[in-house]
This record gives sequence, structure tokens and C-alpha cells, in this order.
Amino acid sequence: IQRYFVQLTPPSLDDQTDDWARLGRELARQHGLRGLTADLPTLQKLGATLRASDWAVTAVVERDAWDRPDGPPRLVDLLPGDQSDQSWGVAIDIGTTTVTVYLVDLLSGEVVAQAAEYNGQIARGEDVISRIIYASKGDGLAEMQRLVLETINPLIAALARRQGIAPEQIHKATVAGNTTMLHLFLGVPPESIRLTPYIPAVNDWPTVRAAAVGLAICPMGTVDCLPGVASYVGADIAAGVLSSGLAETEGLTLFIDVGTNGETVLGSADWMLACACSAGPAFEGAGVEHGMRATTGAIEEVWISAQTYEPTYRVIGGGPPRGLCGSGLISLLAELFVTGALDKGGTPRLDLGTPRLREGPHGPEYVVAWASETAHGRDIVLTKVDIDNLVRTKAAIYAGFSVLCDSVGVDLHDVDRLLIAGSFGQYINVEKAIQVGLLPDLPWDKFHFLGNTSVLGAYRALLRRDERQRLAEAAHKLTYVELSADNRFYEQFTSALFLPHTDLSQFPSVAETLGKVI
Amino acid sequence: IQRYFVQLTPPSLDDQTDDWARLGRELARQHGLRGLTADLPTLQKLGATLRASDWAVTAVVERDAWDRPDGPPRLVDLLPGDQSDQSWGVAIDIGTTTVTVYLVDLLSGEVVAQAAEYNGQIARGEDVISRIIYASKGDGLAEMQRLVLETINPLIAALARRQGIAPEQIHKATVAGNTTMLHLFLGVPPESIRLTPYIPAVNDWPTVRAAAVGLAICPMGTVDCLPGVASYVGADIAAGVLSSGLAETEGLTLFIDVGTNGETVLGSADWMLACACSAGPAFEGAGVEHGMRATTGAIEEVWISAQTYEPTYRVIGGGPPRGLCGSGLISLLAELFVTGALDKGGTPRLDLGTPRLREGPHGPEYVVAWASETAHGRDIVLTKVDIDNLVRTKAAIYAGFSVLCDSVGVDLHDVDRLLIAGSFGQYINVEKAIQVGLLPDLPWDKFHFLGNTSVLGAYRALLRRDERQRLAEAAHKLTYVELSADNRFYEQFTSALFLPHTDLSQFPSVAETLGKVI
Repeated sequence: IQRYFVQLTPPSLDDQTDDWARLGRELARQHGLRGLTADLPTLQKLGATLRASDWAVTAVVERDAWDRPDGPPRLVDLLPGDQSDQSWGVAIDIGTTTVTVYLVDLLSGEVVAQAAEYNGQIARGEDVISRIIYASKGDGLAEMQRLVLETINPLIAALARRQGIAPEQIHKATVAGNTTMLHLFLGVPPESIRLTPYIPAVNDWPTVRAAAVGLAICPMGTVDCLPGVASYVGADIAAGVLSSGLAETEGLTLFIDVGTNGETVLGSADWMLACACSAGPAFEGAGVEHGMRATTGAIEEVWISAQTYEPTYRVIGGGPPRGLCGSGLISLLAELFVTGALDKGGTPRLDLGTPRLREGPHGPEYVVAWASETAHGRDIVLTKVDIDNLVRTKAAIYAGFSVLCDSVGVDLHDVDRLLIAGSFGQYINVEKAIQVGLLPDLPWDKFHFLGNTSVLGAYRALLRRDERQRLAEAAHKLTYVELSADNRFYEQFTSALFLPHTDLSQFPSVAETLGKVI
Repeated sequence: IQRYFVQLTPPSLDDQTDDWARLGRELARQHGLRGLTADLPTLQKLGATLRASDWAVTAVVERDAWDRPDGPPRLVDLLPGDQSDQSWGVAIDIGTTTVTVYLVDLLSGEVVAQAAEYNGQIARGEDVISRIIYASKGDGLAEMQRLVLETINPLIAALARRQGIAPEQIHKATVAGNTTMLHLFLGVPPESIRLTPYIPAVNDWPTVRAAAVGLAICPMGTVDCLPGVASYVGADIAAGVLSSGLAETEGLTLFIDVGTNGETVLGSADWMLACACSAGPAFEGAGVEHGMRATTGAIEEVWISAQTYEPTYRVIGGGPPRGLCGSGLISLLAELFVTGALDKGGTPRLDLGTPRLREGPHGPEYVVAWASETAHGRDIVLTKVDIDNLVRTKAAIYAGFSVLCDSVGVDLHDVDRLLIAGSFGQYINVEKAIQVGLLPDLPWDKFHFLGNTSVLGAYRALLRRDERQRLAEAAHKLTYVELSADNRFYEQFTSALFLPHTDLSQFPSVAETLGKVI
């Protein structure tokens, strides 16, 4: 997306050239742009803009669109006066649970603002399968599309307002998301994703106009949805592979997206295998009673005294806590386990003589913050139901990468680097993630926490054509391994439904902490 | 537009290729189509069509679009089963007064059906100026677009029904029309056409999708609006120049479109000048009390006895008459004049002792058919008001080409060929058109009546890419002469407001018929 300021000679009886040819002539003369095209809505407002701005206008032009490298330049918008000193784009990650938007200054390349919110579709189902089922009934697909747009569009509006611009001044959006999320965003029926043999309608999307989707940026702005790999390894993972640098690495690397769908990639520059397991949204704070996104008021780390079971915690923003984000949940779960407040089945012990551990309305629970210290005046607790949810989630993720390694005959300990992606919080503690059995028991220096790699990949693809190209290449290089037909996955999952694992020999450092001999 | 039948291998767990890539792969393998693109609505129905048709489908593909010769092929539609044995297009002419549609078999190249109807916009103004004014107020533009679509879409539906196909099976439309008509059809504000220095927003239109305009053919079908020359010489004239062969002729040729806008082109293969005069819709049967289109029931020729003033007439279809079409009006006007029933000012004489000439509610009138012989049981008359209307129309057209010849120093008698276009009826009588002073007094063999050259040009451009290219070249070669700023036009117009003309020396053959010495 480029902007060009042009000053036109007004028409006269001696020069009756039409508005469109007049603009094209001047853009060719002053900026070497030839063969300009435009969409009808752009032409519909052409004459009024030219006259209202006294024939001095800024043309917003898409050149060398990545999917049409030799295609003609396209007039995306025409703005009055000289507005060539700014240019805006957005990078969007549509997660099953969380939607993240970056507002990007396309001239400097900087992310000037970012925001995230729960995906409004959650009300119609927590995981992709329930969303697909919902979308297949009646007007469900249209409703799903509307719900995600009602999440994204206010985020964009808020970011634009914060930057003092109108959303219509944003002329490009790059969108990452898993395959189901992109189908729903684009209004493409996702049914076949759910049914064997699990086929997406589209992996490589054409670019579309914002108005065709309902994205509230410039109506003729370009929306570039990133390419996916398979039904359960989508553009979010391709974007993650790009932004994590996995596709350029030499050593054996394991990339784990600790999100709702628990995608894992194993490989290096030469080959890449990918799989997905339906992990659930617990580490994004959803489906947990006091769970929340990693934003102000979220407890992001917890320490518990092994003597008194009294907690100490750190809150994002430093104020009173409102809930627990993913990293806080992992931390709390690990502390409860290593201090013996939970048994290896994850059940809180009520015989330890502390009011922190008590019987609640949903069974045994632990009080991490009393009502008097919280922002909302209610106790913040972690219940047995929450714990079961977290354990299932971590078990699915652990089973996923275990099977992936197994399927190529690689031992987990042969892995040189572990790249951990996910929007569960910035300060995830490796030790604690190992203690709960979410991550394998490897030396800590092998772990790299990358945050939301999907939106980072979208951001890189938004800025640079060559990065977009590399992302597409990475997507095509990924080989998808279908776990749903794999019995090993269920075995591994069942074994991992304990803290840290049925087989403690896989977690020697945890055994040592617990003072146990394997 | 090409159709390709493909039989796909259904997906399996061993081949989880997405639907879109699967289709593209097979089209590449079987038909050498590479880099296929599609619009979002096409992708939205892709999966359902593939599965409902058991993976045997016909791809409707646009290749080598004339404005993107090296562009990628585009999937316009996907049809179940093998439907590669048919392919449909429409050629449309949007006249100010009359809209004409041809349904074309794109495989054989034949026009299989055609239909015409008055442009529904007439209710909002008879000429382009009043339509532009209407369109500039409130929702006028949207209403104008709706009105013309409500004319075109039923015509298309009727033609499709006649051929036993659904309108959605039509995948391409080529549209000719004057500059104002195309602006209104595409919803582009036409205001600047009316205001000095008379500038269209667009002369060269990009192709658009039918759904973007509201044209009721296949929603993602291509709509190619032909290029215009200037505000008052539009794509209809460019199409006329193409289909009349004017751009390839050696001799000096005068092309006259006897339509509402009275466009004239003078020139040959080397150069072409064009002008327009606002003639009015009288020769299309509009604005005349018993005027009608040249269809069943229209009186298309009239003879009047110089003794009794009794008429004989020929009716299209042979049944009882319903009204008078353009050729009938010319014929009647000429007969009334040469028999002396009208004076040279066009006033009916009431002193001739015949009931045919009488005082009517709108002044003096001539009864061409008594109520007892007509289809609707009312007298068919030509009133003084109608005659004034016809005379103004013919005067404007005569003044237009006179000034055009004058402006390049050419005498009307130097013209080698006169090409007469217009949908006023097939059997226009040259002698009578000269007698009323519509056409210049030249040897009859110089005249060639071509009918609606605009829709013919659209038809040729629909079928062949090289013809479309030649049409664009012709449009760019035409030089527009603005008459509105030319005093000679008003002088010529005023002189032509008589039958046949103030200066009878310009019409020697008519003088001879009248027995007058010049």
C-alpha cells in the first residue's frame, strides 16, 4: 500500500478528459504508475473527492499485491489534500478464544497500539467443533461471522481512536487464525472440517475487499487472510512458524502453541510435521471460574508457602487482582502441587488446617485472594472443576507433541529448542510449566517463550511482501499428522491426566523437587 | 468465458488437500489452467457444490479478460455435473429511451433471443439532463440505478425463460449506453456531465461483478461496460462505430444515431469527429401521444391519398394497430406534408373537407386510424403537439451533422456514405426521411440503415476479445466537438424547424416533388 499526492490540472472546455483518466494520467506522469485499476465504489466517489479537494488529492494505491506480483496497481482510496505522510494497516489474529489486533504504522513499520478481547463466538461454543456445528444450522454461519466481526471491529475502532485516526484510514489488514476461524470470518461453510476426512474448503485464500467481509476499515481496503495447512493446522500456525523463525532453524525444534487447539510443529528448515489436539481454552483464562485474559488485574504468578499454604502473588498492573491469567493458573497449579496442597490426581486436600483450602459450591477449592483484597470484592478461587479443566488441557498438549516425536522416532530429549507460543501471559515460568506436566522436563535454556506468534506473523506479512511469500512457503512445507485416527494419542492423553504425569520418570526434575526416587 | 468439466478424486485421510486446491489441481492437470483465482462468494459455495455433485463439476472460467490479458483465470461459477455444452452471455444497450437486450449463445455466437423495453427512468425525465438533475437530489441516484435495473432484469429473465435457462446461467454481460446511462447504471454520480466543462467521472470502465451492480445474471459474472468518448458521446456511439464498420472505411462517412441524444460521427479510418445534440425521444415513439416502440401493433409505414387524405398503413405483425413507431411517424409526417395536409410550419390544415383533419383536445390533429380499426378501440391520431415534437427532433439532428460538416469544411454532398442507426423501426423510408428534413437530400444509395448499432457493437464485443479491443481503440480515436458552445448550432436548428427546411435549396428533390422551383 503506497500513498501518492497529486495536484491535477482542473478540466476545461479545451481538456475534457474524464476524471478517472485525468487522475491516471497524472499518477503516470508524476509517479510512473501505469494501468491503474479501481473498484466501482472507488469510482463512485471519485468526482466528488476531486472537486471537493480542489483537484489536490492523495491516491492510496496497492502495488505488487503479493498474490498478483505482476498485476496492475489498484486505487484503494482517494483522500482529499496531501495525506501522503501516513499509512495504516492492521494485523489481526482470530483465536478460538482470544482475538488480537495490532495497529501498524506502515511507513515506520511500528506497532503503535494493540488490543485483545475474547472472541464473541465463545457464547456459541468453546471449541472449534461446537462452533462448526453451530454454524451448520440455520443462520448459524452468518451469526458466527457477525459475532467475530463484532469482536474485531470495536477493537480496530478503539485502536484507531487511541491513535487519533478514523478506521477508514486503515487500508490493509492481514489476518491469521486457525482454519475454522478463517472460514467463519469469511463466511465460508466449515462443515467439512469436522467430518472425516477433515477437509477445509480453502487453505490458500484470495485477498478480498474489506467491504466484502464486513471488516470496518476502508471499504475497498485489502484483507489478506494468511494460508493454512490443514483443517486443524491453520494460518495461525503458519504465521507462528514464520515469526518464530522455525523454518530457518538448523537444530531440531519443537513449536508448541498453548492455545485452544494445542497445535504443535516439530522439525527444522528441512522438514516440518504438524499436529493439533483440542486442548481447550483454559490457559487463555476461559472455562475457568476466575480465569481472565493476561491484562490489568490478572494474577500472573503465584508462590505458596509449603508451611502455611499462604500465597503471594504478582498482579499485572500492580493493583488489586480481578482473576487469574494463563501464566497465573500454571503457576498456581504447580505451587499447589509441589507444596502438597493437591494430590497427583489434582484434588485439593481439605485436611491441612488452613482456611485457604475449603469445600466450595463446586467441590474442593483453594482461595488465592480473599474478597477484601480483590478488585471486585469476591474471593478469587481455583476449584476442583477448574483444576480438572487445566489438567485435561495440559494433558492434551503434552500428548500431542509426544505422539508427534514418537511418529518420527525422535525422543523428546533430542529436541534442541522448544518454542512456546500462546497468549497466556508474558512471564510463564518454565519450572512451573514442567511441574504441572504441560512442558517436557528439559533444560530450561532450551525453552523460548514467544507470546502470540500468530499475530506477530500476521504483522510481518503485513509489512513485507517477501515475508508473506515465506509464510506461504512455510505453510506448503508443513506436513499435517492427523491425531484423531491415532490410538497413541489417547494413550498418551490418559497417561498425562496426572500431575505431572503417570510416568514420573519422564519428569526427573519434578521427582527431585518432590523428594521422590524414580 | 470458458467451461471445463472436471471429475475430481474425492478427498480421503491419505489426501486431505482442501477443496479449492483440489479443484485447481485438477483444472491444471486436465485443462492446463494455472493460477486460478476466485471471488469470496464463489468459495463460499464451493464445498457444497463439490459434495452435492459427487465431485463431478463444470468450472465456468474467465480467461484472458480483455482488460487483463495476462491476468490469471478466474473461477466465475461452479456448476454440478457436466454443463460444458452450453455457455450464455447478454449484450445490453441502455438507451435513454429504450433498453435492448440480446441473449447470446457464446458457443455458437448466435443471438438466440432479443427483447426491448422503454427505460423505466423515463418517468423521472425524458432526456439525460433531467435524469442527471434528478439523480443529484436525495436518493435520486440510487433510484435511477434501481429503475434501469428494473427494466433490464425482467428483460433478461424473459429471454432466459424463452430459452429455458435460468438467468444465473448467464455468465457475462457487455453493456453499451450513453455516458449518462452508464454512470446511472453503475451508480456513479453524473453531475459533472451536466455542468460546464461537461466532464464524465469515467469513460473507460473497469469490468465489475454482476452482484456489485445488481444485474440479475450469475452474481460473480463479468459485466463489461463499454468505453465512452465524452459526456455526450458515449459507449453507445463507440459501439456503433465498431459495428457499422466506420472505423475501417475509406470514404468520408457520416454516422447518425437517430436516438434521444442525436449523436453524429463524421470521418473515416483516419479520423473521426463526433458531436451530440439533445434531439429527444420522439423517433423512439416516446413523447408522442400515440407513439410506441417498433413492436407488434406499431404502424411502421403510412401512405396518404393526395385527393382524399385517406391513409393506408402497414402494421408490424399485421394485426390491428396500437400506435405509431418511429418509422411510422416519419412516414406519416412526410405524407401529410407532401399531400399538403400540413403547411411548412407543420400545422394541420382543417379546411380540406375531410374528417381525418380535425380540432382535437390538444389542437389540430390528423386521424390515422379510427377507433373501430384499432387494437384498443381509440382513434390513433397525430397532434400538432406531436408534430412540433417531431420537428424539433429532426431539426436538432439535422443541425448537428450540418455543424459537424461545417466545422471541418466538408459539404454534406461530399459525404460518400450515410450510416443511419437507431431503434425507430427497420423499414425507414429514405425518401420520406428526406422529405421531412431529417436526413440530407443525397442519392438514396448512399444511405445505409443499420438498426440499433449500439447493441450490435456490444454483441460483437461480447463475443470476441479483438473486437472489444478495436472498440476501445475506436473510442480513443474519436474527437469530440462540443456543440453547446457553438452558435452555429442554434442557427442551424432554428432554420431546420420547418418542413423540410427554411432553405429549400438544401432539398432539391423535395422541391421537385412539391412542384416548386428553387
